[in-house]
Amino acid sequence: MPSFIDNGTRFHLDDPTLAPNAAGYLWNRRMMIQMNGRGYAVSQYMDPEPRKYAYPPTIAAQTFMQPEQGYYPNHPGRFFYVRDNGTGALFSAPYEPVRARLDRFAFEPGLSDIRWLVEKDGVRVELRLSLPVDDVAELWTAKVTNMTTATKNLSFVPFFPVGYMSWMNMGGHFDPTLDAVVCTSVTPYQKVEQYFKNRHLKDITFLAADRRPDHFEAAQQAFEGEGGLHAPSALADGGPLHDGEALYEVPACVMQWDLEIAAGASEEFRFVFGPAKDEAEIAALRAKYIDGDAEAVRRAYHAYVTDGGRSCLEIRSPDETFNHFVNHWLPRQVFYHGDTNRLTTDPQTRNYLQDALGMLFIRPEATREVILHAASQQYASGKMPDGILLRPDAELKYINQVPHTDHAVWLAIVTKAYLDETGDRAVLEETAAWADDDRPAGIREHVTRALRFLAAAIDERGLPYIDQGDWCDPMNMVGYKGRGVSGWLAEASSYAMSLWSEVCAAEGDGETAGWLKAEASALIERINRHLWDGDWYGRGITDDGVVFGVSTDREGRIFLNAQSWALLCGAADEDRKARLLKAIDEQLVTPYGVEIHAPSFTAMREDVGRVTQKWPGSAENGAVYNHAAAFYAASLYHVGESDRGFRVLRAMLTEAERDDIATRGQLPLYIPNYYRGAYRQFPRTAGRSSNLFNTGTVAWFYRLVVEQVCGLRGDGGGAVIAPQVPSTWQKLAFTRRLRGATFNVSFTREESIAEQIIEVDGRRLEGGRLARIEAGRIYDVTVRSPR
Amino acid sequence: MPSFIDNGTRFHLDDPTLAPNAAGYLWNRRMMIQMNGRGYAVSQYMDPEPRKYAYPPTIAAQTFMQPEQGYYPNHPGRFFYVRDNGTGALFSAPYEPVRARLDRFAFEPGLSDIRWLVEKDGVRVELRLSLPVDDVAELWTAKVTNMTTATKNLSFVPFFPVGYMSWMNMGGHFDPTLDAVVCTSVTPYQKVEQYFKNRHLKDITFLAADRRPDHFEAAQQAFEGEGGLHAPSALADGGPLHDGEALYEVPACVMQWDLEIAAGASEEFRFVFGPAKDEAEIAALRAKYIDGDAEAVRRAYHAYVTDGGRSCLEIRSPDETFNHFVNHWLPRQVFYHGDTNRLTTDPQTRNYLQDALGMLFIRPEATREVILHAASQQYASGKMPDGILLRPDAELKYINQVPHTDHAVWLAIVTKAYLDETGDRAVLEETAAWADDDRPAGIREHVTRALRFLAAAIDERGLPYIDQGDWCDPMNMVGYKGRGVSGWLAEASSYAMSLWSEVCAAEGDGETAGWLKAEASALIERINRHLWDGDWYGRGITDDGVVFGVSTDREGRIFLNAQSWALLCGAADEDRKARLLKAIDEQLVTPYGVEIHAPSFTAMREDVGRVTQKWPGSAENGAVYNHAAAFYAASLYHVGESDRGFRVLRAMLTEAERDDIATRGQLPLYIPNYYRGAYRQFPRTAGRSSNLFNTGTVAWFYRLVVEQVCGLRGDGGGAVIAPQVPSTWQKLAFTRRLRGATFNVSFTREESIAEQIIEVDGRRLEGGRLARIEAGRIYDVTVRSPR
Repeated sequence: MPSFIDNGTRFHLDDPTLAPNAAGYLWNRRMMIQMNGRGYAVSQYMDPEPRKYAYPPTIAAQTFMQPEQGYYPNHPGRFFYVRDNGTGALFSAPYEPVRARLDRFAFEPGLSDIRWLVEKDGVRVELRLSLPVDDVAELWTAKVTNMTTATKNLSFVPFFPVGYMSWMNMGGHFDPTLDAVVCTSVTPYQKVEQYFKNRHLKDITFLAADRRPDHFEAAQQAFEGEGGLHAPSALADGGPLHDGEALYEVPACVMQWDLEIAAGASEEFRFVFGPAKDEAEIAALRAKYIDGDAEAVRRAYHAYVTDGGRSCLEIRSPDETFNHFVNHWLPRQVFYHGDTNRLTTDPQTRNYLQDALGMLFIRPEATREVILHAASQQYASGKMPDGILLRPDAELKYINQVPHTDHAVWLAIVTKAYLDETGDRAVLEETAAWADDDRPAGIREHVTRALRFLAAAIDERGLPYIDQGDWCDPMNMVGYKGRGVSGWLAEASSYAMSLWSEVCAAEGDGETAGWLKAEASALIERINRHLWDGDWYGRGITDDGVVFGVSTDREGRIFLNAQSWALLCGAADEDRKARLLKAIDEQLVTPYGVEIHAPSFTAMREDVGRVTQKWPGSAENGAVYNHAAAFYAASLYHVGESDRGFRVLRAMLTEAERDDIATRGQLPLYIPNYYRGAYRQFPRTAGRSSNLFNTGTVAWFYRLVVEQVCGLRGDGGGAVIAPQVPSTWQKLAFTRRLRGATFNVSFTREESIAEQIIEVDGRRLEGGRLARIEAGRIYDVTVRSPR
Repeated sequence: MPSFIDNGTRFHLDDPTLAPNAAGYLWNRRMMIQMNGRGYAVSQYMDPEPRKYAYPPTIAAQTFMQPEQGYYPNHPGRFFYVRDNGTGALFSAPYEPVRARLDRFAFEPGLSDIRWLVEKDGVRVELRLSLPVDDVAELWTAKVTNMTTATKNLSFVPFFPVGYMSWMNMGGHFDPTLDAVVCTSVTPYQKVEQYFKNRHLKDITFLAADRRPDHFEAAQQAFEGEGGLHAPSALADGGPLHDGEALYEVPACVMQWDLEIAAGASEEFRFVFGPAKDEAEIAALRAKYIDGDAEAVRRAYHAYVTDGGRSCLEIRSPDETFNHFVNHWLPRQVFYHGDTNRLTTDPQTRNYLQDALGMLFIRPEATREVILHAASQQYASGKMPDGILLRPDAELKYINQVPHTDHAVWLAIVTKAYLDETGDRAVLEETAAWADDDRPAGIREHVTRALRFLAAAIDERGLPYIDQGDWCDPMNMVGYKGRGVSGWLAEASSYAMSLWSEVCAAEGDGETAGWLKAEASALIERINRHLWDGDWYGRGITDDGVVFGVSTDREGRIFLNAQSWALLCGAADEDRKARLLKAIDEQLVTPYGVEIHAPSFTAMREDVGRVTQKWPGSAENGAVYNHAAAFYAASLYHVGESDRGFRVLRAMLTEAERDDIATRGQLPLYIPNYYRGAYRQFPRTAGRSSNLFNTGTVAWFYRLVVEQVCGLRGDGGGAVIAPQVPSTWQKLAFTRRLRGATFNVSFTREESIAEQIIEVDGRRLEGGRLARIEAGRIYDVTVRSPR
């Protein structure tokens, strides 16, 4: 049975075929690896841009991570063959490439390692992958146990394919001074300038072992032969590997140990796999991670993941899967985003800021830095750039070369959230210069100017231009001729302006506060005038003046974001709210979450753009795009629709049971950026996970759990206590750290009371607001609520 | 036994494992396909730039063709499964993916089709692939025969994987109106400008059949399942394919027919596979190639290849493999180059011109066009561009963005060769404008100005700058600082100037002729002063003034080109010639041909460049780089070393027998751009073919066979007859067409004579020169030579 184990810090999957693509991931600040249960791996590291060190068998494009990563026999992976030299029988751990029917299989990704246990014909193989904190290296251990009562003669053959490294130069050999198979290459290039840029690259991939192998092979084809990876020729006849080199042949790291293992005895191995610049770097990594103290390395990495990413919240609710996710895996995923910036050197501004929104609940000082850094790349006009450069040599790439209009919104939202969580009003007086003007200005001015820029970029109706996209990157042809506007951006602007108006008012800047409030209201009036379609809001107006996302549209009739943010900004009155919620329930809600729009586009719509060309039901074209669903949940909590809000959040989590794991094709260890939508068009694939764990969703999910479900949030100098607990939960307990204080909160529903009663340290708290928080203090809070 | 069959127009390989990567190729002006014997395929077409229509299972980089293309289970290919529904046994034709032990296997690439015959357990499968002349489409026929005496129930399942088409959008379905599996996609892009550029692309890949399948599958994973391609789950349990769609899943074209075939009976199928813009295009291709007259299509394509590429030469020598190659496969390969420009829109200038050099002996009018077109893109300064644009929307890409200095040389050589072959002096008065000046000038002026530009770009020693490369693209750091010079280019310039001097003299332009002759001589003097190393010539002098390719170099001690062109330009006197030939024999000659330099570089040499970073023994870093070997052969014939010259040519051909096919890994149907060198460093891989059939080699090989081995070449208004027949050949007969006349030539060696006797139509020809050629006339020529 698939289930959480170790108090929710680890998952147990007992069948490699249930969800073939289901994976766990590990990372540090310089690398990331996603391992599926069967042994396939996707990994990359920063050098300084993202690079691979294990490749497919063909020349692959450098590309961003793709959803629904598929695997195939020669996909990069980490495999361990075991040959019983008595019987000749062969199997491989974890499961690929032999795919033998195993006697026992366990894939157990944990917070800071990934483990497998595999048994076949009396042999047990236990594998563990972990990472160091600072280096780019995979740290593997393998333990081979003879579970029978007789001695076994086994050949143990780790096989780490390296793939097609380079058309210029690739090879592999065994280095006896390093006990490593060393695969060398030269990153292909043609222009002489590039030579100098490439010189620092780690063009070696190696596998080092803690002992000398009996045999090795460095050429994939020599190993694989006519047998194929499921039955490699080199292992077929009982003979040893041929100690071969790869000479401009696809290299692989293969080593063989011939083991005589007594009944009940084991052999243990340590390996390091990864990229290196030269032999000296391999030697250094060996010294640290093979000869060094493995337990200390493991502890340090565990501390990096769990203490480094320490959550401000622990909950005990009646929903075990939710508890495990929120207590362990959610902060882990948020921390991954915030600490690595998704392993890019030029994060999109909106991602950079929203990832920092999540970090608020882990390390608010990181959020502070992000706000200051983002402001420092803002133009003096107020305009925010499309991406934030993290290194002096970084440049805007890919989608960051396409002009989007929404970035200011996130600066205001994140800064307001930061103020709420930390009470750190001093940040507003911190200064940053501009990208095109050396004269520094305060952060308050930066945010205000961003909103002023936004307020000015409007058409004759007073609605904001969308240019080549807003939050929705591929909605790139609504306004590319310079006239189209975004209904969603009007709503988001209004919401951001309202938030920032509160900040300005609190800071005593009544004039700006008033202007912002008036702008926010004016936008609401325009939204309702131009975009209300009778039962829901339209998504925008094209260059040709056509309102889209409306009832007359055959595809893309209703867009979720246009409704969510109408609730957030207050555009929708009660009647409209009721109508749009009904429309969402009828047209967008699926068993796997809420779709971003419906019906999915099945053909190009040239006045909407690239989004309509994506596969219907995938990504922004009608998936359960969790980031948008999280906005919807936020809007539901905002208007007090907490049960509905919780259903939206909860649908983002895969259940810890067979059927849902099989349908979604993932484990409940992260929220993917989407589940397939187009539920009403393509039911077979609906619910299938992208298995992409880069997503703005988690910051919002986390924030909603902390601030809405648990309902304990900072507010000026104090805190508001206002849990919006699902009505099906009779109780909830949680611990929340806020501004140095600790709140132990117990929520219960009671038949006997008529209205909610909050007590702090035994004293009744009226109005649900604590005037001030004392750092270091532990508060006991009880909330009793009518059933 | 592998052997030529059908009078040399087809090859027969009887073992799919002998040379796993050995392949045949077909092409038309819009596409190319290289099929290996086991069923793997590499194909591309022009749209207008080169594109794929079948992909690997991962996102592949757009790249130029790579040497030593490797295959792996999920590589694109064309496969036909046969399941015996009586026994459940499964095999696949041609060989992959099942790799069953076959009862009989024949891979038989011909001039205009590729055939297979496979037998297993009483079932014969015959496959044939051909192409149309004008469309992008693969035309397949399959015939399944029951060879037993009882009725057989078979499932016949063509499987054409399509691969990872696009992260934006990919899918597949069966279209009953087309009897086709249609795989759709949207080529990924991000910028709106690209949308408009991409709109015309053929984003569909389809497989259409001549009859309705009983079942189909369009999703690769659904077909493959846990069984893998060698034992697909969908075929494992005896059941039918599931008639499934691919919904943002890796698509494949799979169809199933359940056949009841009587004893001795057959079923025949026709298929079309390829890319399409839309369903209408599929329907049109169906109508032509499935419903149409297949035999007529086949005849037309055969005519395109054989008549379109009709050779000026047929030979009958004692060397059968040489005869077959020269009579059928050499002109075919030359024609492929010349008619398609290697399927690029911006051929490198040197390739464009040398490919036209080969076309001289097939369709000299095509060579004429190339000369005019190349001249029209020359700068008024005389400088030749790095690439020639073939379409108004083409642009210089990849290596054509790196400045090279050799292009003028080829313009002179090719124009001189054109004049010799055709006697068409009128071409010299044809005019072309310049890339940067509208005022037209005659071709004679164009060539002269190219050489003047070359003559002016010299250093203080009077040697030509190399800039970022000469003929050797990756020799890019000898002169990137602006000072390094090329010894080879000095020689090649001298040679080209001598040739052009002859033309100018013949045209009565004594002044230019004299200047060119003086320049050529001056260059020779400088070459001998600065580059002679004692036993051979150095290759150049670096930016820092270091002569390289000399005896004190540990790697790259001797470069072939620097010796060959010293012979061609006349720099080497008899003593030097003897020394350098000895050095070549000792250091560069291998059983598989002559290496381009030796020893191969094993580490970067920063004052030589990228060539030193390529894998030692591959490509320009010390391979038997056949283009350079062909120059060497030319130089040997030029100085009368005809036996040595023939050995160099002959070593480029794989022998039609097992061992050489296995070692080289290719069939004797084309000359590859290289065989692995570094024979003295890495003997295991020496001789291995790149299997890349794009190479400037074939033009030179062809020219040498015509003009030197057979020795019948145009000369002013007449012809020279001067065969340089290998001394081991006692006779040679050939037919040569030249300027509308036909020469039937018989060469014999006779004991009884003391000097060579040439008779034309029974009359003794003194001096070996025929004063004029009468078009339409047939000449009988006998050459008797002392033994």
